[in-house]
Amino acid sequence: VKRNTAPARGMRDLLPAQVELRDHCAAVIQRAYERFGYRRVETPAVEHIGLLTGSGGGENEKLIFRILKRGEKLDLEAGGGLDELVEFGLRYDLTVPLARFYAEHAAELPNPFRALQIGPVWRAERPQRGRYRQFTQCDIDILGEAGELAEVELIQATSAALSALGLTDFQVRLNDRRLLAALVRGCGFAEGALPEVFIAVDKLDKVGLEGVLEEVRGKGHPDGALRRLQDALAAALAPEAARGAPVPEGVALDAEGEAAAERLAAVRTLASPGLPPGVELLFDPTLVRGMGYYTGALFEVSVPGYPFSFAGGGRYDRMLGGLIGREVPACGFSIGFERVVLALEERGVQPEGRPSRVALLHAPELSAAVVVAAAGLLRAAGRAVATLPQRKKLARQLDELATQGFDGFVVLEPGRAPDVRSFQSA
Amino acid sequence: VKRNTAPARGMRDLLPAQVELRDHCAAVIQRAYERFGYRRVETPAVEHIGLLTGSGGGENEKLIFRILKRGEKLDLEAGGGLDELVEFGLRYDLTVPLARFYAEHAAELPNPFRALQIGPVWRAERPQRGRYRQFTQCDIDILGEAGELAEVELIQATSAALSALGLTDFQVRLNDRRLLAALVRGCGFAEGALPEVFIAVDKLDKVGLEGVLEEVRGKGHPDGALRRLQDALAAALAPEAARGAPVPEGVALDAEGEAAAERLAAVRTLASPGLPPGVELLFDPTLVRGMGYYTGALFEVSVPGYPFSFAGGGRYDRMLGGLIGREVPACGFSIGFERVVLALEERGVQPEGRPSRVALLHAPELSAAVVVAAAGLLRAAGRAVATLPQRKKLARQLDELATQGFDGFVVLEPGRAPDVRSFQSA
Repeated sequence: VKRNTAPARGMRDLLPAQVELRDHCAAVIQRAYERFGYRRVETPAVEHIGLLTGSGGGENEKLIFRILKRGEKLDLEAGGGLDELVEFGLRYDLTVPLARFYAEHAAELPNPFRALQIGPVWRAERPQRGRYRQFTQCDIDILGEAGELAEVELIQATSAALSALGLTDFQVRLNDRRLLAALVRGCGFAEGALPEVFIAVDKLDKVGLEGVLEEVRGKGHPDGALRRLQDALAAALAPEAARGAPVPEGVALDAEGEAAAERLAAVRTLASPGLPPGVELLFDPTLVRGMGYYTGALFEVSVPGYPFSFAGGGRYDRMLGGLIGREVPACGFSIGFERVVLALEERGVQPEGRPSRVALLHAPELSAAVVVAAAGLLRAAGRAVATLPQRKKLARQLDELATQGFDGFVVLEPGRAPDVRSFQSA
Repeated sequence: VKRNTAPARGMRDLLPAQVELRDHCAAVIQRAYERFGYRRVETPAVEHIGLLTGSGGGENEKLIFRILKRGEKLDLEAGGGLDELVEFGLRYDLTVPLARFYAEHAAELPNPFRALQIGPVWRAERPQRGRYRQFTQCDIDILGEAGELAEVELIQATSAALSALGLTDFQVRLNDRRLLAALVRGCGFAEGALPEVFIAVDKLDKVGLEGVLEEVRGKGHPDGALRRLQDALAAALAPEAARGAPVPEGVALDAEGEAAAERLAAVRTLASPGLPPGVELLFDPTLVRGMGYYTGALFEVSVPGYPFSFAGGGRYDRMLGGLIGREVPACGFSIGFERVVLALEERGVQPEGRPSRVALLHAPELSAAVVVAAAGLLRAAGRAVATLPQRKKLARQLDELATQGFDGFVVLEPGRAPDVRSFQSA
């Protein structure tokens, strides 16, 4: 009897070709980031439940996989509910653990500290196509740099990483939430309506300008505010606006907004010369990004032909204070690792530089000594060799091996001169 | 106020230099195994609790981190105890998930299938020095190969991997549990006493011959059995015995034992010519290895100067049957990844081939444009560059940077010709 051997619901197994492509992506990204001074750190998969639920994780906190207490700590009869039973949880992102890591180790780390993290996170989301309950995140963060050098570097480094992966001709969109606030205020919306309008504008990519207005309409906003929002968004979306100034002409900014706009303009001027060919930095005052912890610049990478962003990030200067007991400026950029892998898979990208994989098919009448010696010889010649018993239906076996990632084969049998044949030329 | 930011009890954070050494170890091991046809696969960290508790994991099953059910599945009032609350668990090894993986995907995989796994596992052990509740395992397994080609290849491949890591002049000890059984039976112990004697012999490395006898003594075993065991173990431990035959002269074998001895001798003869220089294959009929699932050959790697083994494995032909519904011969070898990393750390091994890491120290009066341009130039020259604000106490800053993994530095300030200096030569 065969038992149910599917992975846990919403999780997945990764076969050799999938792991190879993922490792390739991770290695390319890591090499690119290392040139900007980023080094990989790792934190455990498991964190104290109190850290995970008290760090502004928003909706993600509802998706935590909770780990039971153990031994005498676990009292099923205590009746204290969930909190009494749970000690740890699986991390739902890499930002909260990084904040804890930095609070714990800052004295041993350079200042500013540049971290690269590539690792799995877990979220108990309703499983759906292309969305998994364990998936890989890929973040860089610079902690302790308050100046615009941080934003400039994150943009240049992430552009270099995506470009090295073969994703070219993309746009990095740039905003500061204070600019969108000024724009919405300038249209005549009340201060209290801002969050609601932000949420609507955040869907611009998916529902279009008319969809955004539809969501805001009929909620008692002042006369003309909606019409002015329509005009302002249309102006912001005009291609010439994206290359001009952080906000469209006519948007009134307060002193704080003015400073944000100036800084954003400086980031664009400073970062643009160091971008890979085909990459452009654009202003987009409609860029929102969901997480509430952002305090300054926001970035997002759009690749033409894909309806989602490949990377996003921003400045979050107030997250670490609660853990460390002093304010630490922080800025991060996260590559959508799973999306990158999917895109490269669709493009049929083959990792390079690996040794050629040869299947050594041995006839049953051969002695083990002959097979071991032949495999050793081929390995000495630089091939990766897997020995397999030759099957009766050789043609079918060869077809299968070609689909299983072998580059070539040798048929080893008495009375036949051994010859390494490639599947490509066969 | 600074909150408690230590990792969860028994877990650890990995700093950049630690991650770099671990990545180096994993890459060297992977390259070595790939030449033998092994390819990496991955399974999720989370498995159904029923798989984890019903797969012969022995003591490890008691150490599972259990994950709570969620949403409406979780009924705290049901009163059914632990089983009612738990749906998943964190994997405690890579063998049980591999068996599930193979049962699920065998049709898409070559036969025999060669798997390499390098990944974290979790065990809720009492934390102690050098033992962590999340640690990395590194296994190769060949599934579907019943012949001694499997043992020969695992031994050669693992020897090549350890040798590539710089661990040379080691011994691979070889046994089959049926041989130790014959030896113990031949001493006059009753069949029912075998497990107890095995457990004692398993401690030979730690407690010595006298310690083993002490444990067996005074339990009503037949007259002379203890003395004969002493003689037989002493004979087995003699250096000449290790290079002679699988069991010492005079040990009587039944037909099954005879076949095991013959096969083991063949494995040594076949594998030895392909071993890296300084590596020797020795018979050791006292080798037990704890796991109950082994059915044939057993191996263990001892490196002189270390009181523990660096790798171990064996044949386990009856584990996969229960999951797949048909017998699948299987054989595996597991490298003690954490021990390898510790040994290389102690030896001060530095990963090679990475770009030189330069700290670009910029004076406060410099414009961001100058800093960005200078960093870009150095990167174009092949360096990995991290920009850092120059501190007032430059000498102290340089000392810190040298310990933080930088290879060199540039002081960028007005009126000073920039120059890349190495910490080595400074």
